[in-house]
Amino acid sequence: MSTALKSIKSLAPLLDRVLVQRIKAETKTASGIFLPESAVKELNEAKVLAVGPGGLDKEGKRVQCSVKPGDKVLIPQYGGSPVKVGDEEYALFRDYELLAKINE
Amino acid sequence: MSTALKSIKSLAPLLDRVLVQRIKAETKTASGIFLPESAVKELNEAKVLAVGPGGLDKEGKRVQCSVKPGDKVLIPQYGGSPVKVGDEEYALFRDYELLAKINE
Amino acid sequence: MSTALKSIKSLAPLLDRVLVQRIKAETKTASGIFLPESAVKELNEAKVLAVGPGGLDKEGKRVQCSVKPGDKVLIPQYGGSPVKVGDEEYALFRDYELLAKINE
Amino acid sequence: MSTALKSIKSLAPLLDRVLVQRIKAETKTASGIFLPESAVKELNEAKVLAVGPGGLDKEGKRVQCSVKPGDKVLIPQYGGSPVKVGDEEYALFRDYELLAKINE
Amino acid sequence: MSTALKSIKSLAPLLDRVLVQRIKAETKTASGIFLPESAVKELNEAKVLAVGPGGLDKEGKRVQCSVKPGDKVLIPQYGGSPVKVGDEEYALFRDYELLAKINE
Amino acid sequence: MSTALKSIKSLAPLLDRVLVQRIKAETKTASGIFLPESAVKELNEAKVLAVGPGGLDKEGKRVQCSVKPGDKVLIPQYGGSPVKVGDEEYALFRDYELLAKINE
Amino acid sequence: MSTALKSIKSLAPLLDRVLVQRIKAETKTASGIFLPESAVKELNEAKVLAVGPGGLDKEGKRVQCSVKPGDKVLIPQYGGSPVKVGDEEYALFRDYELLAKINE
Repeated sequence: MSTALKSIKSLAPLLDRVLVQRIKAETKTASGIFLPESAVKELNEAKVLAVGPGGLDKEGKRVQCSVKPGDKVLIPQYGGSPVKVGDEEYALFRDYELLAKINE
Repeated sequence: MSTALKSIKSLAPLLDRVLVQRIKAETKTASGIFLPESAVKELNEAKVLAVGPGGLDKEGKRVQCSVKPGDKVLIPQYGGSPVKVGDEEYALFRDYELLAKINE
Repeated sequence: MSTALKSIKSLAPLLDRVLVQRIKAETKTASGIFLPESAVKELNEAKVLAVGPGGLDKEGKRVQCSVKPGDKVLIPQYGGSPVKVGDEEYALFRDYELLAKINE
Repeated sequence: MSTALKSIKSLAPLLDRVLVQRIKAETKTASGIFLPESAVKELNEAKVLAVGPGGLDKEGKRVQCSVKPGDKVLIPQYGGSPVKVGDEEYALFRDYELLAKINE
Repeated sequence: MSTALKSIKSLAPLLDRVLVQRIKAETKTASGIFLPESAVKELNEAKVLAVGPGGLDKEGKRVQCSVKPGDKVLIPQYGGSPVKVGDEEYALFRDYELLAKINE
Repeated sequence: MSTALKSIKSLAPLLDRVLVQRIKAETKTASGIFLPESAVKELNEAKVLAVGPGGLDKEGKRVQCSVKPGDKVLIPQYGGSPVKVGDEEYALFRDYELLAKINE
Repeated sequence: MSTALKSIKSLAPLLDRVLVQRIKAETKTASGIFLPESAVKELNEAKVLAVGPGGLDKEGKRVQCSVKPGDKVLIPQYGGSPVKVGDEEYALFRDYELLAKINE
């Protein structure tokens, strides 16, 4: 038996969980010079890839997530559950852990 | 008196508990070469074997588990109660601890 | 005044508590050779001897325990309150601490 | 002003508290030989002397204690508030901390 | 501006707080010999001086305190907020922290 | 941009917060001799300057604070959020942290 | 893919979160002399830039934030999630963490 998770698209978050991918910072300057890895600052911005059906309130009703796939969001510095598919890294957050939506 | 647990199939999780078996990573490469044990990465993917009847909400109603036997799921890095039958290892998680379903 | 607890049968668990006795592992091999004590692994399997009337929900109604006397159950590695009668050891768990029923 | 607590009988537990006295272990053997103090094991059995009127549930109704004066109970190894009157020691537990009733 | 608290009688506890004064232990023996300070055991008995109007339950109704001024009570070994007026020491406890009433 | 808080009067506590100023202890004796700073004991008495509109209960209704501006109160030894305007120090407490009112 | 957050104006706080910018302390004296950086005290005053739609109460209704954009507020000494856009620093607080409004 080997990995069942062949594509991130096959991941369906449970309850109020939100699957995100961190937005990568620029690795070269405006003039095209590549920055050394140590100079690339990690961003707390992420793109929402999938959302769960929502958690349950005290009366058993679903509480919809406050973001949807495609949204860009500000994620907290720490926390979240890391997921890796191939070389790409993703993370799962609870909906209430997301800080803000980034409108474009 | 000796072990009552002769087959994992006789285990019926209580409340909102979910019995899973971790999916084993490949131990040989595509070309058939066996990997040394230290090179085999542990996966956080698991197969659901059995689910409990669900926990009770504040009004005493059952809250059904969000996964069912046969589902593949992403489990958290830590946590869960280990169960061993013969040489096989299993784990019990609370339903809300499971991170995501893996669709195929 | 001396011990009031002369038989484990006189113990009636309160609220949602469940009285269990751990199932002892085999101390001899199939061919009848006795195993040294250090080779006998402690099992997390137990037999339910008695159950309490159940805890109270928010409206004051009893929530029945999910197991009954005679059931075999998987108990957590740690926790529970030990009880000793003579040389026999027993333990009391809260109903929600029990992990799974072992069907036969 | 000196101690107001001259007899344990004047102590009326508040809310869901239960006043108990630990049952003392035998200090001599069946054949009448006195055991050295270090050989006398402390028992977790106690006699209920008085119970409070019960705690209040979310709607302000009293939740009656699950034991009554005269009951023998199994108390947890640790916890409880000690009370001393003269040379005698007693303890106060919350009703839900008591483990089991000992029927005779 | 100097102390506003000139008499303990001007102190009106808020919510479910209870103002008590610890009962002092005898400092001389029955035959009138004064005990050295180190031999005077601190008592966990206290006299209720004033009670607050009671805390609020989930529906905003007052939950009356379970003791009244003049009552003698058993207080826990630790906890409570100390208050000092002149040389006298007092303490404020939450109503639910009081262990028992001492009837006379 | 410089400090927006030019007078303590412009501070309006939010929710169930209460703005108080600690009452300063006498710094000279009755006969007019100034006490060295080390001999001036800090008092846990404070004057209420402003109160918030009250927190929200489970049904979304405001729970009024139990004190009002001008009240003198006993504050806990520790806790509270310090506020400084010029050389004066103030503190913000949650209403339920205040211990007692001091009547005059 | 590079930063999605090009202007702080594109940040829409989620749930009961409030986006604020700390008010900078004067860096020169009244007479125009610039203060060394070590002499500039950090203020706990902030300007509200944006507020979330409000958290959800137990019945799933939105609880509106108690401040609005443009309000000046007192923020706690510690806590909040930092956000950086270019060289400017901002912070996100939960509505209930804000201490007081500063009226002008």
